[in-house]
Amino acid sequence: MKMPAILAFDVFGTVVDWHGSIRREAEAMMPGIDGSAFANAWRAGYKPAMAQVSSGQLGWTRIDDLHRGILDRILPEFGRELAPAQREQLNLAWHRLAPWPDAVDGLAQLKSRFTIVTLSNGNLSLLANMAKHAKLPWDLILSAEVFRHYKPDPEAYLGVAGVFGVQPEDVMLVATHEDDLEAAQRCGLQTAYVHRPAEYGPQPKAVGDLARFDIVAADFIDLHDRLRSR
Amino acid sequence: MKMPAILAFDVFGTVVDWHGSIRREAEAMMPGIDGSAFANAWRAGYKPAMAQVSSGQLGWTRIDDLHRGILDRILPEFGRELAPAQREQLNLAWHRLAPWPDAVDGLAQLKSRFTIVTLSNGNLSLLANMAKHAKLPWDLILSAEVFRHYKPDPEAYLGVAGVFGVQPEDVMLVATHEDDLEAAQRCGLQTAYVHRPAEYGPQPKAVGDLARFDIVAADFIDLHDRLRSR
Repeated sequence: MKMPAILAFDVFGTVVDWHGSIRREAEAMMPGIDGSAFANAWRAGYKPAMAQVSSGQLGWTRIDDLHRGILDRILPEFGRELAPAQREQLNLAWHRLAPWPDAVDGLAQLKSRFTIVTLSNGNLSLLANMAKHAKLPWDLILSAEVFRHYKPDPEAYLGVAGVFGVQPEDVMLVATHEDDLEAAQRCGLQTAYVHRPAEYGPQPKAVGDLARFDIVAADFIDLHDRLRSR
Repeated sequence: MKMPAILAFDVFGTVVDWHGSIRREAEAMMPGIDGSAFANAWRAGYKPAMAQVSSGQLGWTRIDDLHRGILDRILPEFGRELAPAQREQLNLAWHRLAPWPDAVDGLAQLKSRFTIVTLSNGNLSLLANMAKHAKLPWDLILSAEVFRHYKPDPEAYLGVAGVFGVQPEDVMLVATHEDDLEAAQRCGLQTAYVHRPAEYGPQPKAVGDLARFDIVAADFIDLHDRLRSR
């Protein structure tokens, strides 16, 4: 198989540990809350909110605003009240997510051989603040915001190839989400699944048949080794 | 005056020495050519080409393609012929422009206190390849390509504030071009003029009254010092 020129990374869950970071910030702001359940509830509202945008039911809306709407909805479900300034501070926790332990070193290794970019549904300022905070060495931050289409719309995946003027097969999507990789595959991109078993907390997440992806890697260091040995 | 949160940098001429880089690559590929005149002729075609896009005469076209069109036009004017592959290689010289000597260290200093982004008419892949090649430590690469409007259209300047959800005055444009800074000022951005006297070659470029800009700096190190002492 042809070596890709561009590695495009899903971010939430693949590069950064949203569950652990949101849990910690929620528990710090709201003592006694079940931070793990809160993080998962917040994240669970994400796909339905994006689907409203993709279907045209909702105009183009940034993840920051979608996150805030979900937060406002779930706080009462957890029996909590927060002042607007506190809600805003908590909402920005998504700009401060911590990388998985291998992520920064792994990206630095991969950057020496490939162009490494984000392909995230997160908005540009969220991704830029996250990269600054976590020292993520992206060559280019690409977002659904640039293409005005959320993944899994084809425009997002094909947009990466378009920006670089290459064929879809010259781009490899790196993600820990099978549905994201499947959508990329349908657009002709290469695919790498990365295991992030603790994405939703200590209970390892269910995983399907991964043999349909071009590479399956334990983490970014392993991804680098597997790409080198192809 | 309020301290800006975001510094948005013009790139060609302000961060990188397009004249010296293009001259060197042109002379290496076409021995005996007047590389300085060639570089200036190539660059001179740039504003009229963008104006065709801004006026709607030409649909959205990336700088890579505008550069190629200008190159094809000026080669015969310099009495030269190049095969398509050579033209493509020379066209990509704009992706390999060398930074001014103070640029990388100055940006690193500024990055520790501000969010530093590009606001360039160069396309995203050009800016990403340039940053990778020259080790420019951008927090975020923004381009006319994101806003589908070339500077000096207001959409480009206001787009930076929009991406970060801040007011125009929270953004400072850093550039060595008075017309760029004037257009930013009309949009409510703060402005910093940086001296790059050798932008067009050894003959220092003409400069107007710079007192109308918020800061006038000798280079990026000086810009950092002046922002700190405000």
